[in-house]
Amino acid sequence: MLSSVKRLLIGRPLKSTALGEQKLNILKALAILSSDALSSVAYGTEQILIVLATISVIAFWYSIPIAVGILVLLAALILSYRQIIYSYPHGGGAYVVSKENIGEKAGLIAGGSLLVDYILTVAVSVSAGTDAITSAFPSLHTHTVSIACVLVIFITILNLRGLTESASILAYPVYLFVVALFILIGVGIFKIFTGQVSPTHHVAIGAPVQGITLFLLLRAFASGCSALTGVEAISNAIPTFKDPAPKNAAKTLILMGSLLALLFTGITFLAYYYGIAPKHDETVVSQIAKETFGRNYLYFFIQGTTALILVLAANTGYSAFPLLAFSLAKDKYMPRMFTIRGDRLGYSNGIVSLGIASILLIIAFKGKTEHLIPLYAVGVFIPFTLSQTGMIIKWLREKPAGWVAKLTANLIGALITLTVLIIFFVTKLGQVWFVFIFLPLIVFAFLRVKVHYEAVGEQLRIDPEKPALQIDGNVIIVPVAGITKVVENSINYAKSLTDQIFAVYVSFDREDEKRFEEKWEKWQPNVRLVTLHSHYRSVLQPLSKFIDTVEHKASENNYRVTVLIPQFITKKSWHNILHNQSSFLIRAYLIFKKKVIVSTLPFHFKK
Amino acid sequence: MLSSVKRLLIGRPLKSTALGEQKLNILKALAILSSDALSSVAYGTEQILIVLATISVIAFWYSIPIAVGILVLLAALILSYRQIIYSYPHGGGAYVVSKENIGEKAGLIAGGSLLVDYILTVAVSVSAGTDAITSAFPSLHTHTVSIACVLVIFITILNLRGLTESASILAYPVYLFVVALFILIGVGIFKIFTGQVSPTHHVAIGAPVQGITLFLLLRAFASGCSALTGVEAISNAIPTFKDPAPKNAAKTLILMGSLLALLFTGITFLAYYYGIAPKHDETVVSQIAKETFGRNYLYFFIQGTTALILVLAANTGYSAFPLLAFSLAKDKYMPRMFTIRGDRLGYSNGIVSLGIASILLIIAFKGKTEHLIPLYAVGVFIPFTLSQTGMIIKWLREKPAGWVAKLTANLIGALITLTVLIIFFVTKLGQVWFVFIFLPLIVFAFLRVKVHYEAVGEQLRIDPEKPALQIDGNVIIVPVAGITKVVENSINYAKSLTDQIFAVYVSFDREDEKRFEEKWEKWQPNVRLVTLHSHYRSVLQPLSKFIDTVEHKASENNYRVTVLIPQFITKKSWHNILHNQSSFLIRAYLIFKKKVIVSTLPFHFKK
Repeated sequence: MLSSVKRLLIGRPLKSTALGEQKLNILKALAILSSDALSSVAYGTEQILIVLATISVIAFWYSIPIAVGILVLLAALILSYRQIIYSYPHGGGAYVVSKENIGEKAGLIAGGSLLVDYILTVAVSVSAGTDAITSAFPSLHTHTVSIACVLVIFITILNLRGLTESASILAYPVYLFVVALFILIGVGIFKIFTGQVSPTHHVAIGAPVQGITLFLLLRAFASGCSALTGVEAISNAIPTFKDPAPKNAAKTLILMGSLLALLFTGITFLAYYYGIAPKHDETVVSQIAKETFGRNYLYFFIQGTTALILVLAANTGYSAFPLLAFSLAKDKYMPRMFTIRGDRLGYSNGIVSLGIASILLIIAFKGKTEHLIPLYAVGVFIPFTLSQTGMIIKWLREKPAGWVAKLTANLIGALITLTVLIIFFVTKLGQVWFVFIFLPLIVFAFLRVKVHYEAVGEQLRIDPEKPALQIDGNVIIVPVAGITKVVENSINYAKSLTDQIFAVYVSFDREDEKRFEEKWEKWQPNVRLVTLHSHYRSVLQPLSKFIDTVEHKASENNYRVTVLIPQFITKKSWHNILHNQSSFLIRAYLIFKKKVIVSTLPFHFKK
Repeated sequence: MLSSVKRLLIGRPLKSTALGEQKLNILKALAILSSDALSSVAYGTEQILIVLATISVIAFWYSIPIAVGILVLLAALILSYRQIIYSYPHGGGAYVVSKENIGEKAGLIAGGSLLVDYILTVAVSVSAGTDAITSAFPSLHTHTVSIACVLVIFITILNLRGLTESASILAYPVYLFVVALFILIGVGIFKIFTGQVSPTHHVAIGAPVQGITLFLLLRAFASGCSALTGVEAISNAIPTFKDPAPKNAAKTLILMGSLLALLFTGITFLAYYYGIAPKHDETVVSQIAKETFGRNYLYFFIQGTTALILVLAANTGYSAFPLLAFSLAKDKYMPRMFTIRGDRLGYSNGIVSLGIASILLIIAFKGKTEHLIPLYAVGVFIPFTLSQTGMIIKWLREKPAGWVAKLTANLIGALITLTVLIIFFVTKLGQVWFVFIFLPLIVFAFLRVKVHYEAVGEQLRIDPEKPALQIDGNVIIVPVAGITKVVENSINYAKSLTDQIFAVYVSFDREDEKRFEEKWEKWQPNVRLVTLHSHYRSVLQPLSKFIDTVEHKASENNYRVTVLIPQFITKKSWHNILHNQSSFLIRAYLIFKKKVIVSTLPFHFKK
């Protein structure tokens, strides 16, 4: 039953050989990996204007130089990540770059903060999408958390179905959003050039602004940098691309960067030219669209696709998280289960973990995840900075042809991202101090996991100079509860393996003990019966003591001890409550506490 | 840790030989088994007056003839149960009497309704006690359910500690209550005889009352019969008495009946003579006490002991439920676990089940269990009627010396209890119809359990004419995941048992398969290696198929198949998430689905 529900939800299993078919071409990869980055166009400009608005409307012209700064940073990041893609064609992004060039801990900091960041991406973007839905249908407002959870479950299932399938479904809304914004920007610019928009709206660039400070401008710049989250996703996900993977990934990256730059520039320019101020209850994009089209069907088209892409931004997390977890797990920093491909060839443990973690986050914050946004921006600029630094070290060490140009690109990138990071810590410490607690914790956990796996490897390694202990024979202990068919089966099985058999009977009263001994003597005179009297009506305690004695004696003679426990298999599951589950408890106890082999002999009831 | 908490709460385990010391003398038994019956004095008279008050104050004199009727019924019940005790000295009460004389289903109806009744006793009396507490301390009112649950847990733990211990603790409040009521009645009667109470309060007996109907009188009688709940408890609990158990039980029963009769008569008489009318916010006993003493310390003594005994009435359920469950389980109508004595020699599964069931009931009804009271009265009059009927049949069949007198006692009892039952169904159908649903369900469940146990017995019986299949040899299958120490151990163990060994390696890709085969050939050239290719990356599926093939072949040659699965035992429990739990899943699957023996070879990590 359960397995057919699974089939229905995620489809039938795929053969390993179908892995090639599951890889992405550029168009699909762009849809799936750029939704996070592109969706930030919907709020990037607004973030800048909100900071500038604290001074005055006259300061709005600063959004243009700030946007130019962000474009420079974007170009540096794109160039830098392009170099990372070619240098580390097996993926892993900031984690691998930092680990190989700076050191283990830098890599783990990058990896850890990205992992947390993807969880935040999912929680924040799904919450934002849910807000859009409940704004449209206020009666749903009391169900915000449930709706968000259902959306996460939906995206999780979509991703469990496999990359190509989700890419096919998600490509439409992503491209629709891009088309919608191009129409908006195109029509807007057309109207400006044909003079349909009055130029009096906006303040001339360079107008003097009272009270403006460098600190404020830096803060506006840092806020605008939230438009850059998600650009690293492609570098983590190279293995999901069709061959030649690095080349395709690089192309996708350039394409994404160009789209992002064009859309961000267009929106920022229109906002400036229209003289739009951020409002509490209407987004900047909505204001631009209203100004351009009025409230007609084109306006709603813009609004609809924007809401959709905000939800789908979550999907970038689903593409990148499992691959990053795979990289960390392959290096033994995370549980091995993250390296296993599921039925549909995705790393389903990573997908499911991401889904669960973000649902927990949504529930914990009751669907109000806005104040997680600064944390989320910091979480992405830490790996940005580390990976650029890593690349700088790499160029300095390897000095390949043209390394100066490459170094320059990364140096500029590193300086800007480091600046942004510092600005974040300085201006928003109250919201991001938490990073200083959880990052060390995560890195510590990674290191502990590695220590364990290495200890395990050590203990499992066969030492050719120390051969395993020789086994000269076997003793089998058969706990018996009566003279029944299942005991008969057990004794016969034990007899077929060894002649050193102890049948053990635990009795609670002396008379019963005597009676049983007599019956046994008649039934199995050749099998030694040991009766143990239990004063406290516990089967386990006397049995455990007896096993210890036998084990001690046996190991002196290079004998191994096996305890044979029968297990009733009932026909219907409710029948289980009618049987003592003592065989289960005894087995668990012996396996975990003793050095004996525990054999389970199933006895299947036919009715 | 867990076990030391258990020690602290319920004490160290007792030896089985201490069972005799755990038995009760008459005084302790009376305390523990009569609290339910005696506590009903606190509300029995009031129940009658509430019904009469619907006509007029003049009708109150009817409480005297009604009380006489109830006393007759009480006498008949006590005589009848005394006969049951001697006829069925091993306990079981109404269940055994009805089963042996009327039939299986009658017995199960009696047993089932008593079991449910004991759960109701606990829920109702603890809720009543909680109400008394929250009335005294209104700030606790919001915590009613939690307080009731804590009380149930407290009584459960007390009972888990053992009979004698709880009897010693509970004897004080029970006897204090009896003493308190005797003082009240004594002083009251003394005041009446010395003329300190004005006789004008009450209506003369025999005064004509307008509008009185037989139906109403019967209803008042039925309501008053709630004073009789709990008298059957002793007959279920004979095995807890010191030897000679039946004699001691009979004495206790007579003692309890006499106390109940005296107290009930006294309270009813005082209520009548004082002309007390039932009030919404004050109990009849409280009014009598106030009238007799004024609000002095004696008044509060009466009130305090009354509240205490209402809570302790629950304890009767704890004494009788586990013993009744034991009787039903011994006859295979209930899970076998109810026949097992716990650490302190009580039937702890019964005690814990009763506790859980009543907590669930309290939570479900949010602590407002008053409307369960009619259900509870019906639940006790069904077994009353059935057991009397059973005794009638017994006397008619056996005709021992003096059977006519015995028959007469039971006949009167049966007729009265049947009448009460019919009155209940007629006057309170809306509250008790539920009985018609749950009693058949419970009886059905009992019968299904019996059918299962009998089928099991059948299947476990050794048929001397059909000896068990001979075993000519053993095949051991060892799934291997690499060349490690744990595999070395497994192979060595398997070699020591048989020479028919298959090492099975499940590979997900062809190259890896080839590499492994070569490595194996070098390492263990004498052990056959079977490599299975898994298209769908499942280990279980190809392994299961292979096992089927081997099993089929083996069973043709009278060989048995054992699958040897290594199990990592980690040093710290969090390490478990770092290891695939596949060995656990494979083991469970094979045990439940296949006819192979599954052996677990533990590998204990040292760090």
